[in-house]
Amino acid sequence: MISFRCDYEDGACPEVMEALLRTNGETTPGYGEDAHCAAAARRIRERAACPQARVYFTMGGTPTNQMAIAHLLRPYEAALAADTGHINTHETGAVEATGHKVVTVPGVDGKVLPEDVRAACAVHTDHHMVRPALLYISQPTELGTLYSLEELEALRRVCDERGLMLYCDGARLASALAAAGNDVGMPDLARLCDAFYIGGTKCGALFGEALVFPKPELSRGFDFTRKQRGGLLAKGRLLGVQFEALLAPGVYERIGAHENALADRLRQGIAAAGYGFVSPTRTNQLFPVFPQALTERLEQDFAFHRWGEAGEGRLAVRLVTAWSTREEDVAAFLAALR
Amino acid sequence: MISFRCDYEDGACPEVMEALLRTNGETTPGYGEDAHCAAAARRIRERAACPQARVYFTMGGTPTNQMAIAHLLRPYEAALAADTGHINTHETGAVEATGHKVVTVPGVDGKVLPEDVRAACAVHTDHHMVRPALLYISQPTELGTLYSLEELEALRRVCDERGLMLYCDGARLASALAAAGNDVGMPDLARLCDAFYIGGTKCGALFGEALVFPKPELSRGFDFTRKQRGGLLAKGRLLGVQFEALLAPGVYERIGAHENALADRLRQGIAAAGYGFVSPTRTNQLFPVFPQALTERLEQDFAFHRWGEAGEGRLAVRLVTAWSTREEDVAAFLAALR
Amino acid sequence: MISFRCDYEDGACPEVMEALLRTNGETTPGYGEDAHCAAAARRIRERAACPQARVYFTMGGTPTNQMAIAHLLRPYEAALAADTGHINTHETGAVEATGHKVVTVPGVDGKVLPEDVRAACAVHTDHHMVRPALLYISQPTELGTLYSLEELEALRRVCDERGLMLYCDGARLASALAAAGNDVGMPDLARLCDAFYIGGTKCGALFGEALVFPKPELSRGFDFTRKQRGGLLAKGRLLGVQFEALLAPGVYERIGAHENALADRLRQGIAAAGYGFVSPTRTNQLFPVFPQALTERLEQDFAFHRWGEAGEGRLAVRLVTAWSTREEDVAAFLAALR
Amino acid sequence: MISFRCDYEDGACPEVMEALLRTNGETTPGYGEDAHCAAAARRIRERAACPQARVYFTMGGTPTNQMAIAHLLRPYEAALAADTGHINTHETGAVEATGHKVVTVPGVDGKVLPEDVRAACAVHTDHHMVRPALLYISQPTELGTLYSLEELEALRRVCDERGLMLYCDGARLASALAAAGNDVGMPDLARLCDAFYIGGTKCGALFGEALVFPKPELSRGFDFTRKQRGGLLAKGRLLGVQFEALLAPGVYERIGAHENALADRLRQGIAAAGYGFVSPTRTNQLFPVFPQALTERLEQDFAFHRWGEAGEGRLAVRLVTAWSTREEDVAAFLAALR
Repeated sequence: MISFRCDYEDGACPEVMEALLRTNGETTPGYGEDAHCAAAARRIRERAACPQARVYFTMGGTPTNQMAIAHLLRPYEAALAADTGHINTHETGAVEATGHKVVTVPGVDGKVLPEDVRAACAVHTDHHMVRPALLYISQPTELGTLYSLEELEALRRVCDERGLMLYCDGARLASALAAAGNDVGMPDLARLCDAFYIGGTKCGALFGEALVFPKPELSRGFDFTRKQRGGLLAKGRLLGVQFEALLAPGVYERIGAHENALADRLRQGIAAAGYGFVSPTRTNQLFPVFPQALTERLEQDFAFHRWGEAGEGRLAVRLVTAWSTREEDVAAFLAALR
Repeated sequence: MISFRCDYEDGACPEVMEALLRTNGETTPGYGEDAHCAAAARRIRERAACPQARVYFTMGGTPTNQMAIAHLLRPYEAALAADTGHINTHETGAVEATGHKVVTVPGVDGKVLPEDVRAACAVHTDHHMVRPALLYISQPTELGTLYSLEELEALRRVCDERGLMLYCDGARLASALAAAGNDVGMPDLARLCDAFYIGGTKCGALFGEALVFPKPELSRGFDFTRKQRGGLLAKGRLLGVQFEALLAPGVYERIGAHENALADRLRQGIAAAGYGFVSPTRTNQLFPVFPQALTERLEQDFAFHRWGEAGEGRLAVRLVTAWSTREEDVAAFLAALR
Repeated sequence: MISFRCDYEDGACPEVMEALLRTNGETTPGYGEDAHCAAAARRIRERAACPQARVYFTMGGTPTNQMAIAHLLRPYEAALAADTGHINTHETGAVEATGHKVVTVPGVDGKVLPEDVRAACAVHTDHHMVRPALLYISQPTELGTLYSLEELEALRRVCDERGLMLYCDGARLASALAAAGNDVGMPDLARLCDAFYIGGTKCGALFGEALVFPKPELSRGFDFTRKQRGGLLAKGRLLGVQFEALLAPGVYERIGAHENALADRLRQGIAAAGYGFVSPTRTNQLFPVFPQALTERLEQDFAFHRWGEAGEGRLAVRLVTAWSTREEDVAAFLAALR
Repeated sequence: MISFRCDYEDGACPEVMEALLRTNGETTPGYGEDAHCAAAARRIRERAACPQARVYFTMGGTPTNQMAIAHLLRPYEAALAADTGHINTHETGAVEATGHKVVTVPGVDGKVLPEDVRAACAVHTDHHMVRPALLYISQPTELGTLYSLEELEALRRVCDERGLMLYCDGARLASALAAAGNDVGMPDLARLCDAFYIGGTKCGALFGEALVFPKPELSRGFDFTRKQRGGLLAKGRLLGVQFEALLAPGVYERIGAHENALADRLRQGIAAAGYGFVSPTRTNQLFPVFPQALTERLEQDFAFHRWGEAGEGRLAVRLVTAWSTREEDVAAFLAALR
């Protein structure tokens, strides 16, 4: 069974595994107060061209979103998100569990539009309603699409206009950065966001995310937040070691490029076979629409998610490539499609 | 610098690291729905002689305590703990962050006495006060001491009497199980506790704990709790792989025995040198009392925690041995002591 | 300035005020453990034809919804509500503040449809999402409309089908019960709901609501919930005294009938003058659509809420009648309209 | 049965009841946005000699403490309180329900000592523990004692030293202000506290407290907090009307003086009869120690709380006088004592 189910079904990429093995015998202070975490944070500050940024390593997407949002908001403040946004749909109410409402706006291809942010703020007029105070986005989005730099700058402007913080979930940031036509770099995220995270789990690590606060004052007390919310790893250096390896020259880039190249090949093959897509993605997720019978036939040899009904007896499915996806996996899928 | 600071400053024990390496290339479903997790859970049910137990893998002591307690209590119910208990002192209010009060009882050498549980329950008489509904203990305790089987059974009786659940934090369970004179086995924990966890992080794993609910009905919905509280690992098999390795015949035993043997040697050497201890431990933590000047001298070559003032210009310190502590580390410390 | 802004801008109806005055000199136990609360609860059980019901008096709509929902749900469970539902729009995230997500369904005229409940449940398939476990409705709804008995029974059936509890917010229940054509009585609420509240604040009391649990087992521990959430009134008898007066034969009925009669007169006059309405209400709220200029002119002499844009330069506004609204108030408004 | 059980077993004092009756027919905006609330707030600012203070009316002691503390603290911060403090003992974990730990210090006669605050702060050294950020006190304390101005200023100094806010619960402030030898006035509270509340419920109102933020910036967003936590009264003017009446010249003073005078008479009579007290109070609470048999005999004709065992077969009990206590009630008690 070849799997395109998601990008966290394999172990770590070779560089990460090698680094974990190489450093296994070291003795270092716990809780991330070690030289590997310091070095990894340094790399991130350099890549983001943001020397003053504060970096905190965490252990997964949901807890990172939960901790960042709970840290940045006052108790009665809310996060805005696309209705398809991960915090709204697939985190078992983790944000609400910290007391905050998620207010949704209709996303277009998974992306938030400035006018919808304005409209959502406009109806929240007084203290009988929550106060929207943060806009959650992800790059790529839940539907695999990307914000252009122009779009991101427009969101920043509406955030400034309405007193919102901007937070970007970068669970699959490697794929976003390497995508054809992408013009949003890490320095742009650092310049435009109040916080964002660089995904490790879905980009070749065993686990781990790097939460970045470009404005140090917004990170004040995050040490406490991370511990209190259960997000502090005892052998914290494991996160530093992995991010040192992932962010060594060329590695994160190569992982993203590999995922995207194989996704492109899938995309082209599927399009050539005459099938359409739910959203126009350029990253490592694609959402083709297949007839029911074809879907069932493909499921005999390939693992993937059914995404939803697509009308006329068709199904939208999700295919995801990973650092570990092989060319022959793609070829086998396309062969089966024909 | 030789460190006795804690048991999570090194990597994983060889068996765990080897297993992670060996399985790195596998493709398995995420979130712990894989064969390694299933096999590890099976091993735990066997060791605990509790075939109906439900096992959930988690990523650290604080989140495990937080999730288990939040899961088991109704919103207005409280956990009882020794004043020295980890949830009361060193978890940044993680339990309270889920809305629950921690009610303390005076511990003796870190242990809770039945009569103190009764007294605490007796003052909580009505709905103007929280309702104590769970007793938190750890084995070994925060001060390195152990409950005997008789003591644990007495706590179970008082729990039954007062309508409390009994929860045991086993962060250092390997050391407890291997301690000289210990008569509390894993089957006893399964028989006497409503939930307990088997520590991985401090017992040779890279990270990970195994939360066990001997009564399946108490675990209902814990899948949701774990995800909502940020405790579900995407590449969940990593936890299964590690616990499979740790609980292979002889490994967990050997780690505990090794830690205890070196701790005993330290203990005997320190006693022979004429120093006393804060608590009478038999596990891998010891709390000797040293003069201030000696402490400062030792700190030049050894890392350890200062635990607190001990009167007359003396300091209590904490020394911890780990799976990776070497005989020569101990010998060096004892040599320095003389 | 004559006000149709809401039904809580005046004091209490004469019977309530008289009862408070008459009993002011009594000395009774605090916290609602007095004979007035007992008598009022008895009256509610009789009116609801539910001798086993448990009744708890509380101090306002938002805290009652918040406490009831937090009490009934496990931490990871969610409440379903119409997108226009009060808990979703006008309670400053009070439900989320207790950790629970509010999942919305598209309401029609403020009402929830069974098929939308089914659809919402269908997409919540596993522990990566919250678990919908309670359906929140109000009678009348936020848009002043009413569920028929048939509609309510259909909701109950879908709740049974999907394992949901049914909770009804009766902030304006007096108006609902007295509405023309209403066929849902208090015994129906008790028979079909897992909990509901009988509104006092908006139905002639100074303040106060009566939360009813027809199934006693669902109320277990609510004494604790109410105190912990800040909802227990020290001089609790004030609530009993008021509900005794409100639920004396004929009073609650008269208040509802009075409100509705004046609302009907407004409605007919506005329709006769050629204006339409946002929703087809029969209760004490109406939502006419006026031209902008007319709205502004009316605002010079009358207080009411602007509800939203209605297209073509028109505005929807909300008019509410109260126990204290006078015939001449209505006549003056209709005169001004012409 | 004559009751000394507490000061909230009767209705409102005549001035409050008269004001409620007199204003019952008025129509005013809801939620406290009315002229009575404005006038009452003005009176409070004048009495507190603090023209910039922000005043919020609330509905009871527990919710006021809960909302104030949740508003002032960041999620991982803790409140310090005497072990006997109301938030620690009699609020069903209301503070913890908002996510905050209550860290206790040993009180002396219910009062917090500066050195104990220092000691509690000293052990909270890093992000593995909560961060104490607010000191909760009450005036009078839970044991009826009073802070002198000197003591209060010393607490303020230690708060400044340790970065704590100072919050004072004034549930029985009328009695405190009127107590013999009291030198702490409302301007002192406004000068020394970051927030405090002026009790209404236990000082002659039907219900209601006035929460005062002497520094406006600390109140920012409290409108949202109050609504979100269920503490916003729809007919909010009821609170303004009551505080206008209570704080009219001489009323609050008279209530406090009356309570204290009758409490003094009780105290003297009990002392003259040869019985001692748990704490040396000068306010409307007293805690005499009686033999068990006497206690039981008194309970036949008088209602009061048993406070706890006092050794040698004796019981500490609590007697409380109220605005409504009569001289003959006291005389009857003292007669029964002999």
